[in-house]
Amino acid sequence: MELADYGSLFLTPKSVAFVGVPRKSGPGALNPVDNLRRWGYEGRIQLVHPHVHEIAGLPVVPKVSALSDPVDLAVISTPRETIPGIIRECGRKGIRAVIVTIQGFAEADSRGKELQDRMLDEASKFGIRILGPNTLGITNAFHRIDTSFMPSVREEVPIGLICQSGVFFVGVTQLIGGMGIGVDIGNDCDVGIADALEWLGQDQRLGVIAVHAEEIREGKRFIEVAEKVSRRIPVVALKTGRSDAGARAAASHTGSMAAEDRIVDAVFKKAGVIRVNETQDQVDLVRGFARLPPMRGPRVGVVTLSGAGGIIFLDSMEKYGLKPSKLHQQSLNGIQSLSPDWMRLGNPIDIWPAVMKHGMRKAFSTALKDTLSDPNVDGVICINLAMPEAEQKHLGAEKVIQELSDRFDKPVVVWVYGSHPEEVVKQLDTRGRALTVPSMEAGVRILGTMARYEKWKTSLV
Amino acid sequence: MELADYGSLFLTPKSVAFVGVPRKSGPGALNPVDNLRRWGYEGRIQLVHPHVHEIAGLPVVPKVSALSDPVDLAVISTPRETIPGIIRECGRKGIRAVIVTIQGFAEADSRGKELQDRMLDEASKFGIRILGPNTLGITNAFHRIDTSFMPSVREEVPIGLICQSGVFFVGVTQLIGGMGIGVDIGNDCDVGIADALEWLGQDQRLGVIAVHAEEIREGKRFIEVAEKVSRRIPVVALKTGRSDAGARAAASHTGSMAAEDRIVDAVFKKAGVIRVNETQDQVDLVRGFARLPPMRGPRVGVVTLSGAGGIIFLDSMEKYGLKPSKLHQQSLNGIQSLSPDWMRLGNPIDIWPAVMKHGMRKAFSTALKDTLSDPNVDGVICINLAMPEAEQKHLGAEKVIQELSDRFDKPVVVWVYGSHPEEVVKQLDTRGRALTVPSMEAGVRILGTMARYEKWKTSLV
Repeated sequence: MELADYGSLFLTPKSVAFVGVPRKSGPGALNPVDNLRRWGYEGRIQLVHPHVHEIAGLPVVPKVSALSDPVDLAVISTPRETIPGIIRECGRKGIRAVIVTIQGFAEADSRGKELQDRMLDEASKFGIRILGPNTLGITNAFHRIDTSFMPSVREEVPIGLICQSGVFFVGVTQLIGGMGIGVDIGNDCDVGIADALEWLGQDQRLGVIAVHAEEIREGKRFIEVAEKVSRRIPVVALKTGRSDAGARAAASHTGSMAAEDRIVDAVFKKAGVIRVNETQDQVDLVRGFARLPPMRGPRVGVVTLSGAGGIIFLDSMEKYGLKPSKLHQQSLNGIQSLSPDWMRLGNPIDIWPAVMKHGMRKAFSTALKDTLSDPNVDGVICINLAMPEAEQKHLGAEKVIQELSDRFDKPVVVWVYGSHPEEVVKQLDTRGRALTVPSMEAGVRILGTMARYEKWKTSLV
Repeated sequence: MELADYGSLFLTPKSVAFVGVPRKSGPGALNPVDNLRRWGYEGRIQLVHPHVHEIAGLPVVPKVSALSDPVDLAVISTPRETIPGIIRECGRKGIRAVIVTIQGFAEADSRGKELQDRMLDEASKFGIRILGPNTLGITNAFHRIDTSFMPSVREEVPIGLICQSGVFFVGVTQLIGGMGIGVDIGNDCDVGIADALEWLGQDQRLGVIAVHAEEIREGKRFIEVAEKVSRRIPVVALKTGRSDAGARAAASHTGSMAAEDRIVDAVFKKAGVIRVNETQDQVDLVRGFARLPPMRGPRVGVVTLSGAGGIIFLDSMEKYGLKPSKLHQQSLNGIQSLSPDWMRLGNPIDIWPAVMKHGMRKAFSTALKDTLSDPNVDGVICINLAMPEAEQKHLGAEKVIQELSDRFDKPVVVWVYGSHPEEVVKQLDTRGRALTVPSMEAGVRILGTMARYEKWKTSLV
């Protein structure tokens, strides 16, 4: 079978068998069948358990050989000693894609290492590919499938995720910013980052791929695949185990071997992969790439409600490789005419005095529209106030931002501040193309990285 | 009058007069009287307006001379040309503390500079001290006063704030993490950072002071005051205008003169002030200092639900000057006995396999209690899951964390991840002494900075 065919079995199976599923279902049981039902998976679900006849309302067979054909994907969660034998049974049954979820293999002790090797031996006899062990498996919101036993958030967003730990599946909101398709390679005993990257890189529904890796195996193949993918969509990678202590811990987490960190840097650079060093950067960048149009240059227009904010933006623009646009005079005329006589406007455009004279909507829409229209502007950063509901009617610019960000093909990031930001952030994130950011500096970092990626991409042509 | 007496007039006035208050009140009017009422200010409020007799239900007099004595604090928001004259009227009336809120002075143009100088001349004739211009004024949650016209969040928290921009008052949640007492020095024409620091540094209800500065004037006096304050409580400062473009913008925002950034570094270092370079660091650190007991050394115990998380913690511990505690064997015995045989536990303590066998509460409380009890541990970082409500009953450790963090005099930071974090974060932030953090790395950065501050403080003894 071709690699792509295995990709279909793992990511869009028509029939799934769970071997070693919990007897109970409902809250607290952590039964993966509950997740599949919640999602509305439309394929066939079969269950294997030696001692019970029904789980979660579904019939159960006592062993793999008793399953009805065909089974595209088997998800195994039985004790570690049983795994090589069950892989053999799967092979005989014609199953070619297997996820081994449980822990206790190469990451644990010598017996675990031995069992992992035996499991791979059995698999190779039948042409089986194994994802894991020590994994939550896969998730595909577009196919409404999820093999994880942990309840989590899945949405049809253009974000792919490849990781070596369940924490990225469960904490996807905090660590990635969303996930449409995810592959947890766990111990990475067979299906690896390069394989998953090849599968996900071909999916036209994805606009960005996030990678969490504790080891980059098969460096040469990784570079080949990652470069090809990066030419189409950005790959944002968090490689952990940078520190000595972290590298030692990675060995006992997924059995990973540490490489010198500067080698990882070189590999990523060659492949066009965007490296991040902290999780907050990863979630910010992935959200930015998933939502915003390209940042085609380093020139930023800043629409601010605060002079101090403008200065903070300028400080971080220098740090992250951006510069304030030289605005055409006509782009400033509108907002200048709304401002007090003593005000000399520049970029950052401090619109607060105009807001005090003419109200938020008028000042904000004038400044934002003229800035977005200026050919010297590649992207825009702005600030929006969030007040209690009664005040927000007078002080909120979210509708203006939504309308204008949809009308221009330039990225717009918005930092929201004030006493009641939740509703405003939610409204901006739900509609329109503007992106809310957790801090002023995060907004700059996102646009700066997007500009750098675009420059790299164009340099290849 | 002594400096401290002026401090009382500005921060705990028994009687306030607003000169140039808006005619309207209610949502959209941005009338400071609405804020004072919402707060329940118990002092006397008087209003001055030339054309109306009643505003927001309060009687209005036409000029300053018609106010009833005594007036501790006057808040002036009339057009800039009128300000020097009104200052003179205030002087004749015996008012000694004045806030000038409006913009258009030294930051704006030469006429503004001239008016600022004339205003200061008038003030000096009467021994008046001026806060501003270009300021939201002061806020004191303990005295239930707020001179700002912007609606915002005020709480009796042990956090002081000194800033040069209203964005820090209005965005206090996003930029500082709360504010009990705040002073916006605006253009810093008279009352400056050192003055405000002297006032706030004496307040025993405060446990940390945040500073936002575009310029450090009177370097020598600043060092004297800041060092004295820093010996008692930490001062966390964000000095903006680091970049060339930022420094130029600061000149037109508050009329600030830029100093070379390495001089600012040296001044802060000498004064024991903790410098931050991004707003997210400031909010994280201020929250940490305000809530957590001292971090008395660099040794951290990590209780994690994820091996990958443990590695991320180790990577950032190296970066932020912390190290994993060498735990005594007896601190590991409890959790070891709950874990599978193949598991070899160390620090970070990966409790997930024990959770799978014995449930969240038992595994978490065993590991956290034993870690906090270990004399080699100066502080603890842990991870808590946040799931939909029905699952959270089985998977949440927030009660365990609350109880144990209250019982030990060591800082505990918690990173919450999962599909429904809002409720769990809120519960942890409302009760107990543990601190929730926005990312794993932020938790490490907070403890690392707290350890560095404690070391500096002890080195002075």
